[in-house]
Amino acid sequence: MADLNFEIKSKDIAARIGKLKINNREIETPTLMPVYNPNKPLITIEELKKEFGVKVIMTNAYIILKNEKLRDEITDKGIHKYLDFDGIVATDSGSYQMMVYGAVTTTNEEILKFQEKIGSDIASFLDIPSLPDAYKPRAEEQLEITLARAEEAKKLNLNLIINAGIQGARYIDLRKRAAEEIGKNFKLVAVGGIVKLMEDYRFSDLINVIAAVKESIPKNRAVHAFGLGHPMVFGIAAALGCDLFDSAAYALYAQNGRYITPSGTKHLHELSYLPCSCPVCLNYKINELDEKLLAKHNLYACFEELRRVKQAIVEDNLWELIQMRARSHPALISGIEKMVEHGEWLSKIDSITKTSAFFYAGFESDYRSEVVNAKKRLQRVCSENLIEIHPFGEVPAEICDIYPFNCVLVPERLENEEGAMGQGSGIRDIHKIKKIMDYQFGSGAGDLVADNVRIVRSRKTRRIRWIYDAKNRRELIASVRARDHLIIPKMNLAGKLHEKFEYPKLRVVIDDEALPFVTEGKSVFCKFVKEIDTDLRCSDEVLVVDENDNLIRVGTLHLSPEEIMDFDRGMAVRVR
Amino acid sequence: MADLNFEIKSKDIAARIGKLKINNREIETPTLMPVYNPNKPLITIEELKKEFGVKVIMTNAYIILKNEKLRDEITDKGIHKYLDFDGIVATDSGSYQMMVYGAVTTTNEEILKFQEKIGSDIASFLDIPSLPDAYKPRAEEQLEITLARAEEAKKLNLNLIINAGIQGARYIDLRKRAAEEIGKNFKLVAVGGIVKLMEDYRFSDLINVIAAVKESIPKNRAVHAFGLGHPMVFGIAAALGCDLFDSAAYALYAQNGRYITPSGTKHLHELSYLPCSCPVCLNYKINELDEKLLAKHNLYACFEELRRVKQAIVEDNLWELIQMRARSHPALISGIEKMVEHGEWLSKIDSITKTSAFFYAGFESDYRSEVVNAKKRLQRVCSENLIEIHPFGEVPAEICDIYPFNCVLVPERLENEEGAMGQGSGIRDIHKIKKIMDYQFGSGAGDLVADNVRIVRSRKTRRIRWIYDAKNRRELIASVRARDHLIIPKMNLAGKLHEKFEYPKLRVVIDDEALPFVTEGKSVFCKFVKEIDTDLRCSDEVLVVDENDNLIRVGTLHLSPEEIMDFDRGMAVRVR
Repeated sequence: MADLNFEIKSKDIAARIGKLKINNREIETPTLMPVYNPNKPLITIEELKKEFGVKVIMTNAYIILKNEKLRDEITDKGIHKYLDFDGIVATDSGSYQMMVYGAVTTTNEEILKFQEKIGSDIASFLDIPSLPDAYKPRAEEQLEITLARAEEAKKLNLNLIINAGIQGARYIDLRKRAAEEIGKNFKLVAVGGIVKLMEDYRFSDLINVIAAVKESIPKNRAVHAFGLGHPMVFGIAAALGCDLFDSAAYALYAQNGRYITPSGTKHLHELSYLPCSCPVCLNYKINELDEKLLAKHNLYACFEELRRVKQAIVEDNLWELIQMRARSHPALISGIEKMVEHGEWLSKIDSITKTSAFFYAGFESDYRSEVVNAKKRLQRVCSENLIEIHPFGEVPAEICDIYPFNCVLVPERLENEEGAMGQGSGIRDIHKIKKIMDYQFGSGAGDLVADNVRIVRSRKTRRIRWIYDAKNRRELIASVRARDHLIIPKMNLAGKLHEKFEYPKLRVVIDDEALPFVTEGKSVFCKFVKEIDTDLRCSDEVLVVDENDNLIRVGTLHLSPEEIMDFDRGMAVRVR
Repeated sequence: MADLNFEIKSKDIAARIGKLKINNREIETPTLMPVYNPNKPLITIEELKKEFGVKVIMTNAYIILKNEKLRDEITDKGIHKYLDFDGIVATDSGSYQMMVYGAVTTTNEEILKFQEKIGSDIASFLDIPSLPDAYKPRAEEQLEITLARAEEAKKLNLNLIINAGIQGARYIDLRKRAAEEIGKNFKLVAVGGIVKLMEDYRFSDLINVIAAVKESIPKNRAVHAFGLGHPMVFGIAAALGCDLFDSAAYALYAQNGRYITPSGTKHLHELSYLPCSCPVCLNYKINELDEKLLAKHNLYACFEELRRVKQAIVEDNLWELIQMRARSHPALISGIEKMVEHGEWLSKIDSITKTSAFFYAGFESDYRSEVVNAKKRLQRVCSENLIEIHPFGEVPAEICDIYPFNCVLVPERLENEEGAMGQGSGIRDIHKIKKIMDYQFGSGAGDLVADNVRIVRSRKTRRIRWIYDAKNRRELIASVRARDHLIIPKMNLAGKLHEKFEYPKLRVVIDDEALPFVTEGKSVFCKFVKEIDTDLRCSDEVLVVDENDNLIRVGTLHLSPEEIMDFDRGMAVRVR
């Protein structure tokens, strides 16, 4: 049977670089599925493979079904052989045609079975895309049909992966309901009916719809943003956790002489210069750009932005990218301002420490997930020595060396007069360590470090690096990470944390089956995690315990608690 | 003798797309002069020409002078023939070496004459680049020498164009003094000693220095931002009126494994993906990028950004580009926030109406040149029917259809509840026209339009298009431009404006020599303008008058008043 495996390789905000494997065909997400129209193949499969390195495409099963010659040939050869394409082939069901023409001459069952017959890797059922502003009872009615068809698709038990459409127009309650039902039954879900929101620059509605869906489905579902083919939104959609995009836009825009850039669309006649270095833009003059060349440029622009988004994810600076992209259009600023209203949810998925600096860009920066997380943890720390660090508010001077306070950059206008750096200079190391402990692990954690521990500084940077036991002065109880100045406890200190904080605080509980491996220091994988403290955050230092709450190891959380509980694959804790 | 001609083809903020002609070699500005090191030619001249279309390069005369073999060969052949380069060759004098090594073994006179001898099109005298934070008396002393050398260079009267260095470290008074002296005597000036500001991300200092220079020199000087070779700053530097950049950065950065993007620099080892579509990034893997390939990528990135900047200038949305770029780094936000402090100066150069919408992006948007200009003109209009339109404040409902009020886009958070558009719907057309007249031409201008003029609307848009005389109802007295809803007066109405507003209000005074041509309807060129109302703005409707203040024609101002007075070439008024 067809199977889908999905695992997170790298993450930032709610975005993830994923390894998605379907029928032994593997792709890296987020990615774009270029739409290939078999009736009008503007860019050939050969070109998609060779020039763009495409490993997944999308085509339309309904168009094939309704073209006798195509149908017979493809049924005979199979879709992969017909296209001479060995990557993943996703097919659409005719839902789009239904939306445009009002009806289609096929049934849910027929089109699903046809997709199985031609060998699609990913198939769609015949969901009904409601327009964003559809009359609500009408959208609800259409959603009922969609959900019934999803149920039917499930029962058919076909040998393919279903790309399960989630509808509900702009109505958040409908979207949530649809997401809950669909999310239960399908591993690959599609947020449908959103193209019009994108085309009309209704980005705050778009963000609300995507967020509603993402908040209502298990985290291990691969999410396809159906029809979201403009690079302007790749960053923000990825940041909300979308994994797949598809684009007919590259060709449709080209048809109308529209030139795509990551910050918007230009009509060719508006262009005096080509602000791009792709093979089309470097080798042709503006007046030489025909439909096909324009389509190619558009596709280059899409893939370039995807690489930029992925680079930002691995660098932990996706917020910085989308803050910049938001300045492409005030409607995108509205979008990112709407996005931060989901800060509570995003902060649970995001990491507690990052490798990139925090760049302030404007209003939305004050409400980013890092700010939500930091403000929550600041409540754990008492101090009479407070420093104002925008946008975090008053921060104890003792902890201003740690992430994110040590790497926040704001415009001069918002700078603390003194500057945050070096404010901790008059403070004794032991006081810093105690307060950092409180911040990281909870109020009172600092008391676990004796006043007379031996503290060793780095020779090079003169910053605290090692903390040794007060009595046994050669026993390392913790180190302090150079990058973010956070404390990495050794087993000795971990034992005290384990004693002080009650189950399930700070804990990742693992299955007995994994015990032998983890005891040896091997990583904990998601499927062996039985329970987890939901106040933990990705990149936190955690206590790995067995089912009887015996402390086994310490380690660093590789994903967020919710992700760990939802995913079967991938690393949960990197054990020390 | 060598000659330099410079003329503005298109403009936005203080940026201009210029036609710069030196020794019959013509280039379009703003542009980048890649630095070619004859001792270490990383990218060959052949490649610069063929792959990058380079028409102007920069090389170092001091390096040539000090290398016997090179010196002899280049003296013999001439620099163009030696390089096999037919474009503009600019040479540096050794100032950089002086800064790095403390001294050079040549004299101002020798290096200047040597540059003439090898046939440089553009030569530098031996100015002394002070470091930004040089002790002020020291910077002043160095400036004295620089100014004396400038004087010497002038007196030598060589057959080449001098690229006259303006120094003064970060001291605005020194920069202004230098700019005034140098600006008087040279047609091409270079803002020197700024590389360190760029490298240290001290963008607000950088902006202050450039602005100080630009405010102190005639507008027709071509301005070279010496050593400003990172695309991150091309937009903002162009917006302040820089025309030429040079870049050794593309090669120097490559030497250190640094990959340039328009929003910053990455070390190769930080990159997992290449966020670019240039021939290097599409055809090579990250680990295959050697110094030369990296240099090529860096240069592609530079030229791509330059095309983006030029496209923004012709589209009138350079503010939008630099607002977006500012979000690359908070220090650049500081830079753009510093830039708007020069809003009064920028507003005098900028246009009063633009073809692009006004996109709000953040704090700085409230102080953009369009806002300064609009707020000033709003004082001309009385109304009891005011609408809040961010960031312009209270705007009379009668004029909310005109630019910029009709095309300002802000995030939802800042939107007027009602929305500005359509607020004028209950207002009589004649009241709108009167208030628009006040706004455009001055308080009381509206009184020149009789209450019972015949107003004709566009059949298609239903908006006001034509205004006919109250008595002779077939005589068109003005039209209303569809794009910005501003009033274009015909001679009848122009005559009334001429009568109502005293000399020199609204006027462009032309030389008698141009009278026959202008009377016929030909454009007014800069060199024939004797005087101009300095309250006018580029794109304003103006009265063209002769030296005795007889009204000749009406037309549209093509440049700002200051530019018109300073330039000898190019169009000043497009006459109707």
